[in-house]
Amino acid sequence: MAFSPVLQQLLGALRCLPGVGPRTAQRMAFHLLERDRDGAKALIEALTEGLARIGECEQCRMLAEDPLCWICASSERDAALMCVVESPADVLAVEDSAVFNGCYFVLQGRLSPLDGIGPEELGLGLFEQQIAGGKVREIILATSSTVEGEATAGYLASLAQKNNVTVSRIAHGVPIGGELEYVDRSTLSRAISGRRLLEVE
Amino acid sequence: MAFSPVLQQLLGALRCLPGVGPRTAQRMAFHLLERDRDGAKALIEALTEGLARIGECEQCRMLAEDPLCWICASSERDAALMCVVESPADVLAVEDSAVFNGCYFVLQGRLSPLDGIGPEELGLGLFEQQIAGGKVREIILATSSTVEGEATAGYLASLAQKNNVTVSRIAHGVPIGGELEYVDRSTLSRAISGRRLLEVE
Repeated sequence: MAFSPVLQQLLGALRCLPGVGPRTAQRMAFHLLERDRDGAKALIEALTEGLARIGECEQCRMLAEDPLCWICASSERDAALMCVVESPADVLAVEDSAVFNGCYFVLQGRLSPLDGIGPEELGLGLFEQQIAGGKVREIILATSSTVEGEATAGYLASLAQKNNVTVSRIAHGVPIGGELEYVDRSTLSRAISGRRLLEVE
Repeated sequence: MAFSPVLQQLLGALRCLPGVGPRTAQRMAFHLLERDRDGAKALIEALTEGLARIGECEQCRMLAEDPLCWICASSERDAALMCVVESPADVLAVEDSAVFNGCYFVLQGRLSPLDGIGPEELGLGLFEQQIAGGKVREIILATSSTVEGEATAGYLASLAQKNNVTVSRIAHGVPIGGELEYVDRSTLSRAISGRRLLEVE
């Protein structure tokens, strides 16, 4: 199939989007070129503006177009409670749960020495600076439960303890509404080993 | 959730892509901003260039960056055989089957008076011009088997007959490799009513 070079280039460029393979890229390119050239123009503008204006929050590394993100800038958030997550999407997930009113620290990844991702890439210098000031009382580690996520949590816990800050890890176990028979083995083993004593009145 | 206006705009712009809802848009925006700013830049360039340089083939309305698409420009294709399809993606599907060596006419839609899509929107003026010259011997109608697709095929058939051009419709029936019990009712009814006599030697 001899696509024209310009089209070929567009198909390749669309594949930088996550979850977009050759077929989806083709469908997107055709859609934009045939039916939604205005949408394509708007996309170009929004991308250009986004790249130019959206950076990282100086305090928590969340995506922000001002020096501080909307959470760090808010006076209604509890700056003494810090939740450490791996990505901006995780921030949104925690915000959605509407149970947390503290601030965040976004690692933008997790420790993975084999991929060249060390403390520096995760902004842990900034992290230590944040917790050294004495204003943070507790750190909640909400990194993923993968091997790297656990290793990252362990590393952060030692940093926190060195700075005399209380540190906790979000609970892992059986999801609410989940039926035991459909829960995978490792989740169930975490749920059992992490069981909590019930106080009988 | 108080997204920044620039991010909000980017999320909205990404949703012009087919199949992209709020969640996917968010994933794409975060991916581009956090991890692939170079990819985003390449996408901006490719889109800009695509919009500026990719138009329609003068003969068949296929996407093309030159006045003629690569098929119409080729001397190896049989210009006497014309396959009428609804979209550029359909052209690629027919090309993939590798059984057709003629030219195409891309309608860029199908007749749908309620949506304001009439003969003019489908470029049927250009279509009549193409078949009036006497160079087209047969037209194969490969519009979809929806109500509008069938109506479009009927309309095109009458145009072809008016111009004394042989007209045919692609066969509809049970897909190759399909098991009868999994074939839907309307396909099966088409397969039975469209049965072909076998010649016994």
